[in-house]
This record gives sequence, structure tokens and C-alpha cells, in this order.
Amino acid sequence: MKEKTLSELVYERYSLYYRCVNKMYHKENREITDSNELSRNLKIDSSLIRRDLSLIGKMGKRGMGYSLLSLKSGIEEILGKDKTWNLVIVGLGNLGNAILRYLAHSSSNYNIIKVYEKDPRKINTKVEGHVINDMEHFDTGIRYDIGIIAVPSTEAQGVANILVNHGIKAILNFAPVKLKLPESIFYREVDIFKELDILSGMLTFEMNNH
Amino acid sequence: MKEKTLSELVYERYSLYYRCVNKMYHKENREITDSNELSRNLKIDSSLIRRDLSLIGKMGKRGMGYSLLSLKSGIEEILGKDKTWNLVIVGLGNLGNAILRYLAHSSSNYNIIKVYEKDPRKINTKVEGHVINDMEHFDTGIRYDIGIIAVPSTEAQGVANILVNHGIKAILNFAPVKLKLPESIFYREVDIFKELDILSGMLTFEMNNH
Repeated sequence: MKEKTLSELVYERYSLYYRCVNKMYHKENREITDSNELSRNLKIDSSLIRRDLSLIGKMGKRGMGYSLLSLKSGIEEILGKDKTWNLVIVGLGNLGNAILRYLAHSSSNYNIIKVYEKDPRKINTKVEGHVINDMEHFDTGIRYDIGIIAVPSTEAQGVANILVNHGIKAILNFAPVKLKLPESIFYREVDIFKELDILSGMLTFEMNNH
Repeated sequence: MKEKTLSELVYERYSLYYRCVNKMYHKENREITDSNELSRNLKIDSSLIRRDLSLIGKMGKRGMGYSLLSLKSGIEEILGKDKTWNLVIVGLGNLGNAILRYLAHSSSNYNIIKVYEKDPRKINTKVEGHVINDMEHFDTGIRYDIGIIAVPSTEAQGVANILVNHGIKAILNFAPVKLKLPESIFYREVDIFKELDILSGMLTFEMNNH
């Protein structure tokens, strides 16, 4: 299967490796791990872990384990955590508010550049130091990397179209609706029913096997 | 690797199969698909898809494709979508409000049984027809399957402990904090930084290869 990029499932596993490696290195002050330990912690097949981590150059010899420091910096490079990414948030309802407050209080390599809303009562107010801008006057002079959509589902496609027209490269969608997007746009959605389905799947397996 | 259940990554793929199969069957009125088509749509290796779907019994002969109807009902069985699951939601801030409103407006096999909050100004009010209950008086006479935690991160572990003590089997955590839970609890978390890291990983790959 030829792809323009690695499957997003690979990056999803990388984000798991990243959190696990960070914990071992920073919280447990350790220096070495191996694919079997990562496999036990993350419940991912160790052969898949070795294949994934072989994408990182110079990861040491077979059987020697991985240096956590090299692993961490290799994963950071693959996830782009050594760069700063510009975010635009659209929609300041309950969900958008929660997202903005959380991001504004976290230090990260993501930079909230603009926040947009269409409700005139919210426009020009400030939330967490960010001015709420009018979606009707979308600022085209800025490079946005990732757009976060937190508007009602009926408005999400319209917002996505505006973001795409203005050169957005990736979208994280919290609105519970499938968006039609050009192939070139990287896309993730947060879908509570997906999460609930995964949990009820695991519960079902346990009910049937215990 | 022996596990008490299938890896949650398997269920995550199943939730992707479910959405894709539903779309083909209900929206496109089709009857048959195969692992290659699923692979193209979902960007998952076709051999992995065949292995996953072999968990569904009686899925037809090799080379004949899959009946979408059988696939749909097999996946529903594996994900437990043929059962009703009881939810308890804890925390009615911005995020909890958005979650409650969304779930209350969607028809699904998830049933919101109780909603809890500790803010006295909210207790005994109603949101979307659900009475907001006092977290201090947790109703122990009810079977909860899945607990949704939407409280601030400082309070999430305390809430998780209460849910676990009252026999919860699965937790979906929206608070941005790692929870310490017994091994027997099924756990998912919605982590916006994980989603952003996946997108920035894909953007990084594209920048380096184009």
C-alpha cells in the first residue's frame, strides 16, 4: 500500500511511545528500555514496536535495548515536537471554551494564534488572554497549521471550507459530523461514541469470556 | 502476549470498520465489500483487516468478499452494540455540559443513568432532562457500566476512586491527567495533545518528504 505518509495509526502508536518513554525517563529517571518492556506497558506487539522504532535512525544494536534519551529525541523529531505549530480555534461554546482554557494553561509546542466565533455577544471579548475574533473576518495574513473545529455540527462543514480555502494543512474536529475534505488535509476527530464503543467492546469480551 | 482481552487497538480498528461498513451499507446501499477496499478507505493493511475480521464467525469463503450485512452484525456483536450500557457522567463544567448535551441528543445504545457534580449551584438543577445529583451522595443502588469523568484534573483521581469503589467497569476520562486505576478497569482517555501530536507528526513527514 503506497501512501503519501505513514498511516495515522503509526503516529497514534508513536504518541503512546512518547508518553511512556517520557514517564520512564523523566519520572522514573531511567536510561534504558527495550521493546518487550514497551510491549508489556502498552499492550502492543513487540515486533510491531521494533518495526515502528526502526524508523528512528541510529537506535543502537539488536539486543542492547533502547537508550531512553535517544528514543525520546527520535520520537520528538517524528512527531514534530521540536517545532512550534500554529493553531486556530473556531467555536467558543462549551466545548471550545474548555479546549481553549486547557490549551492556554498548558505549556506545549502548540501556539494558539487566533480564536474565532460567530456569536456577536462573544466577539471582541477576551478568554484566557485571547481576543475572540469574528468568523466573518477571517485573517488571511497568518500561517495556520492546525485548525480546531468546535462549532455545532450544522456549521462544521462551512467552517472547514473556510479553513481549507485559507490554506490550513490539518484539522482536528470536535463536531460530531463527518467532514468532506480534500485528500491533502490531515484529519483527526474526537468522537465520544468511538471511545464508548471501544470500552463496550472490551466489556463485551470480558462478559463472554469470564 | 497473553492478555485478559484483545488489545484496545483492535477495538479501535473495529470502531473504524463499524463506521465504514455502516456508511457502505446504509448510505451507499451496497451489499458486499472486501479487505482491499476497506484497506484503501481506512489506510489499514489488508492482512491486518483480514486477521481482525476473522474474529467474526462465519464470514464467508476466501475470495468471496464480505457481506456488509453480516459484517455489520458481527462487528456490532464484538463492540457490544447489541446491548445497552449504563453511563454515569461526573462533572458539569463546560466540557461535561457539552458531553451531556451531545449524548442526550444522540440516539445510541448508551443510556445516561446519572449525572453528578459537586458545585451546589448546579445540584438539583436539570440539564437536558437530567437532574444533576450531588457527588457527595453517590447512588450505590445502580449498576453503572461506564463512567465519564469531566471534572478538573485536580479532582479526577478522587472521582475515579469513588467510581471504582462503587463497581464501575470502565472509565472514559476527559480530565487531562493520568489516573491510577486497578488493572481490571477498562480505560480510555480523550487527550487533545495526543490528537495534535498525531497531526503534527503527519505534517512533519510531509514537510520532510515533499
